[in-house]
Amino acid sequence: MAIFKRKISIQSEVATGFGVNSEDSSGRFYDRKSGSANVIKRGIGVLNRYSWYHTMLAMPRTKFLWLLLIAYIIVNLIFAGIYYMIGIDHLAGVNQGSDIKNFSEVFFFSAQTFTTVGYGRISPVGFAASAVSTFEAFLGLLSFAIATGLFCGRFSRPRAFLSFSHNALIAPYKEGIALMFRMAPYKNNLLSEAEVKVNLAMQLEENGKMVNRFFNLDLEISKINALALSWTIVHPINEKSPLYNFNYTDMVNAKIEALVFVKAFDEVFSNTVVQRFSYIAPEVVWGAKFRMMYHADEKKKATVLDLNKLNDYEKIELLSPVITAQ
Amino acid sequence: MAIFKRKISIQSEVATGFGVNSEDSSGRFYDRKSGSANVIKRGIGVLNRYSWYHTMLAMPRTKFLWLLLIAYIIVNLIFAGIYYMIGIDHLAGVNQGSDIKNFSEVFFFSAQTFTTVGYGRISPVGFAASAVSTFEAFLGLLSFAIATGLFCGRFSRPRAFLSFSHNALIAPYKEGIALMFRMAPYKNNLLSEAEVKVNLAMQLEENGKMVNRFFNLDLEISKINALALSWTIVHPINEKSPLYNFNYTDMVNAKIEALVFVKAFDEVFSNTVVQRFSYIAPEVVWGAKFRMMYHADEKKKATVLDLNKLNDYEKIELLSPVITAQ
Amino acid sequence: MAIFKRKISIQSEVATGFGVNSEDSSGRFYDRKSGSANVIKRGIGVLNRYSWYHTMLAMPRTKFLWLLLIAYIIVNLIFAGIYYMIGIDHLAGVNQGSDIKNFSEVFFFSAQTFTTVGYGRISPVGFAASAVSTFEAFLGLLSFAIATGLFCGRFSRPRAFLSFSHNALIAPYKEGIALMFRMAPYKNNLLSEAEVKVNLAMQLEENGKMVNRFFNLDLEISKINALALSWTIVHPINEKSPLYNFNYTDMVNAKIEALVFVKAFDEVFSNTVVQRFSYIAPEVVWGAKFRMMYHADEKKKATVLDLNKLNDYEKIELLSPVITAQ
Amino acid sequence: MAIFKRKISIQSEVATGFGVNSEDSSGRFYDRKSGSANVIKRGIGVLNRYSWYHTMLAMPRTKFLWLLLIAYIIVNLIFAGIYYMIGIDHLAGVNQGSDIKNFSEVFFFSAQTFTTVGYGRISPVGFAASAVSTFEAFLGLLSFAIATGLFCGRFSRPRAFLSFSHNALIAPYKEGIALMFRMAPYKNNLLSEAEVKVNLAMQLEENGKMVNRFFNLDLEISKINALALSWTIVHPINEKSPLYNFNYTDMVNAKIEALVFVKAFDEVFSNTVVQRFSYIAPEVVWGAKFRMMYHADEKKKATVLDLNKLNDYEKIELLSPVITAQ
Repeated sequence: MAIFKRKISIQSEVATGFGVNSEDSSGRFYDRKSGSANVIKRGIGVLNRYSWYHTMLAMPRTKFLWLLLIAYIIVNLIFAGIYYMIGIDHLAGVNQGSDIKNFSEVFFFSAQTFTTVGYGRISPVGFAASAVSTFEAFLGLLSFAIATGLFCGRFSRPRAFLSFSHNALIAPYKEGIALMFRMAPYKNNLLSEAEVKVNLAMQLEENGKMVNRFFNLDLEISKINALALSWTIVHPINEKSPLYNFNYTDMVNAKIEALVFVKAFDEVFSNTVVQRFSYIAPEVVWGAKFRMMYHADEKKKATVLDLNKLNDYEKIELLSPVITAQ
Repeated sequence: MAIFKRKISIQSEVATGFGVNSEDSSGRFYDRKSGSANVIKRGIGVLNRYSWYHTMLAMPRTKFLWLLLIAYIIVNLIFAGIYYMIGIDHLAGVNQGSDIKNFSEVFFFSAQTFTTVGYGRISPVGFAASAVSTFEAFLGLLSFAIATGLFCGRFSRPRAFLSFSHNALIAPYKEGIALMFRMAPYKNNLLSEAEVKVNLAMQLEENGKMVNRFFNLDLEISKINALALSWTIVHPINEKSPLYNFNYTDMVNAKIEALVFVKAFDEVFSNTVVQRFSYIAPEVVWGAKFRMMYHADEKKKATVLDLNKLNDYEKIELLSPVITAQ
Repeated sequence: MAIFKRKISIQSEVATGFGVNSEDSSGRFYDRKSGSANVIKRGIGVLNRYSWYHTMLAMPRTKFLWLLLIAYIIVNLIFAGIYYMIGIDHLAGVNQGSDIKNFSEVFFFSAQTFTTVGYGRISPVGFAASAVSTFEAFLGLLSFAIATGLFCGRFSRPRAFLSFSHNALIAPYKEGIALMFRMAPYKNNLLSEAEVKVNLAMQLEENGKMVNRFFNLDLEISKINALALSWTIVHPINEKSPLYNFNYTDMVNAKIEALVFVKAFDEVFSNTVVQRFSYIAPEVVWGAKFRMMYHADEKKKATVLDLNKLNDYEKIELLSPVITAQ
Repeated sequence: MAIFKRKISIQSEVATGFGVNSEDSSGRFYDRKSGSANVIKRGIGVLNRYSWYHTMLAMPRTKFLWLLLIAYIIVNLIFAGIYYMIGIDHLAGVNQGSDIKNFSEVFFFSAQTFTTVGYGRISPVGFAASAVSTFEAFLGLLSFAIATGLFCGRFSRPRAFLSFSHNALIAPYKEGIALMFRMAPYKNNLLSEAEVKVNLAMQLEENGKMVNRFFNLDLEISKINALALSWTIVHPINEKSPLYNFNYTDMVNAKIEALVFVKAFDEVFSNTVVQRFSYIAPEVVWGAKFRMMYHADEKKKATVLDLNKLNDYEKIELLSPVITAQ
């Protein structure tokens, strides 16, 4: 593995915000699905460590709705308990019966207060029950104000909605080879002025110690006006590339990870959106090229983009003198 | 059509995000009215393919309000069905009568619960009806929280509100000619730092195959401080222009499309807004110039911009040696 | 006025988005108070010409609240009319009396429905009244969803909250003179990365015709890190300045207007804010300099900024050979 | 203190927006906790001076919620007073008793109206009480619309959530020394494209008068792609540094303050966030270096960042010829 000792021009090195000591990192730098960094924070209280708003925004939709429903039930159980302790006589109109029936009547009264339905069949009499219900109605409206704020936040949270090909390919390119992968927008948002940056993380031996190094990969095209169809990102592997003369085994040994960062302007939201993705050595296919994933539909006078074909590639022999290993 | 074979300097070529094979595209690249790309997506489920929030935001106002009303009626029909199945005896105060009358009573009770009006003439008794109404009131508030979020999103969605002249003109300009079109803001928003980019798509023959090529058009002025009046965009057709020596027939044959992209800062929203538009060959008028569309109003001490005149032009003979074809 | 015929280097000319023919403009370009351009739009329907959302956002607070209240009363009057036409017998619990008393009962029932209070003393019976109240409750919630959206928009609308000195001064500066004015933030917002641009509009004689010309004024400092105190903008009047060798009468004759555009980053909103202002010749004071408007408060360990002193200046003799005219 | 008289290259001087006369400033420029400038504004009315929206947004959460609750109680007390003056006979269903009992009944009726619960046990009869309750319900919904707007604003207010090391260090760096401090994100937000600027404020003697001067400090790395782990900011103290040849006593005498400004892109909010911090001479430790604050967790395949260690440093002897003073 003498190759890892060779001096790589410092000019293409970049500061990624990740540590240099390879002992201090393990596994991927980026989680592939969420695009977030594989970092665990410790040392301060859990309440300080989480921005509950960020948590609420990043939560999947179904989980978020269940959370609201469960919170609604718990709050009503608590208030039902309070009304029950104050005494069922302070609520006019309750159909008294067994303890369970009484408690359920009180629970439903609480819900009618919290949601401000207030049918009025059951209504508070006396100071204690009235005061509690006055506070509960306030809390109810406040809660729904907060819920509305959360919905606003979740709705207006800009996301890029980009799909990436599962594999990156080492494909023929001009006289040599290139690292290629592609992406496509899969929703009805409209992205323009898209820009992509690819950093390569690898472990190199320096002074007998393994260290992480990060390099910027030159791209054939790194900016496009509109991201309407698929976009194939091409990094030519030439003398200036940190991947020059690497074969598959070298990639695995150097634990390479291509860190992809896409930034675009969403024209519906009028906001900048970003997305991250990464490829590690076992996800790189040697000697393959992508198949076209769009074609003209003459009848509809439009271009059809088939998202199922995002990772469609065909094997192809590389003519370059690079040793293919897979 | 030997002209299409000539080598055009690669320097003005741009990556637009559209495909190169002319077989893979048909018709316009941009839909003229909405400014969105003429691309149809396939291959993944319709639910994944649409961001319902983007859909809700882009929907016309009237359609959106009807949708809300219809959803309101459907939800109440469903809950009315549930209450009806539970039994009308579980709702105190119903004026019983025919089946239809009973169902309508139940329907109105559902609406009073969903909107949290809760008059209380009809009110639930017994566990089942109470539980359902407890859930319905929760769902009602949640729905209106979501509706509020959607209104927030629709309201705060920044749009440029720019009108474009229906035609682009080939007009006299200095010693030669220029491609001109104009735009004007038609609402009471305030745009500043406006910037325009024009790309030209054309089909050229390369190695016996028709390919799409995209060029950046140099503009006389591409940035202005404030977009308060009309703005005429001028592309001088000189040696550096990809349209140099074209006549009208050439434009039609090359299936040219001028892709216009405007970006500005809306001072009321404090947000960046963008708008797209496009011109194809049949929309280009040869030998014409725009008439002034604003004049001073001495009484009101202001400049009057007449939006009706946006496409007002007069025919004019071109002195340049270019062959006019229309 | 031979001075206006002199050729001014085209390099400092800028595109402001205003017209060139001086006949087509009258009065100031910018309204001083609102900072918006003095342009009146005509030619399309008033509904298309106004973005009602922009109107609602730009409206003064008191006017906006009155508008909501009046709309609330009108909507209830309309619905009261509908219930009254359906017949007061369809509303159970109405204390019947004179026509006016009946109508007021119906009006209050409408309000209780629209706001979803729904006391239930009065409640609809029969299909027609129930259906109308079902729709009214829906409309009520929708209206408040829209109102909430408007409040969100009004609240989150970023404004710079900058005050400008009423006068611009011609003050001594180094060996010569300079045009100076100053601004200060007057609220508890936090502006950083402030940037200012000043364009000068003037009417020049060209080929026997008066035309508007716009020039960029070079500033001593045009960017600062934080706009925490007052900021004096300095344009040195040297050979490169379009105001070089002007005296007060020249300024009046050329109808100069200094168009000021400030852009900053509001750290509370995390948004870019802009503000416009302008000075015309009669607002320029010849031979004066600003007095300091802040001082250290040793007790409170802070700098005190006295906003009352924003326009405080003292007259001073200009040593330069410029003819002062005021 | 002859050192303060030496001429410092004007090239690194920056406009910070703070005054030059040292008499006009006292204490720190930036409040360390809030990051806001130590400026007090005077001279215009308190209502004009505060943007109540900014105030509501910047207020701590608990204080904000108490404020809402207290406002709720006060509004209900006022309306209760009005109903009480109109006369308790205009409210049907009140359980009359002592004055206090009557007032509390009226208070609870007010709350039921304001929150639109409207049980209906108590309901208004007659014009006056009905009209007031009609207005109160309107006001109630409006208030909650405003509260919702404030919650939206508070939630979506982007903050950087960065912690800074309490001390800055003078640490060995290459052949010389450097000023170092570090920061770390402490919440689950995701920052990318982070950029840091450090300005140094110091008091210098110029023409026998003490003046404030501001310098830009060159940083080893001032931009990183992702701020996922801790980030140590390094300013090498070489010939170009305004701190060159300073010792601890010099720093104290010159009243230096390092003004730190961080700007990053929050990928969850898709918004730019900024944060300020500052270090003064007594907060600088001479001869120390930071200990690592993250390590690999092999089991969880992630990097662990221990926020407790943010200010962990060890004393180290400086080999450079600089006189250490602490």
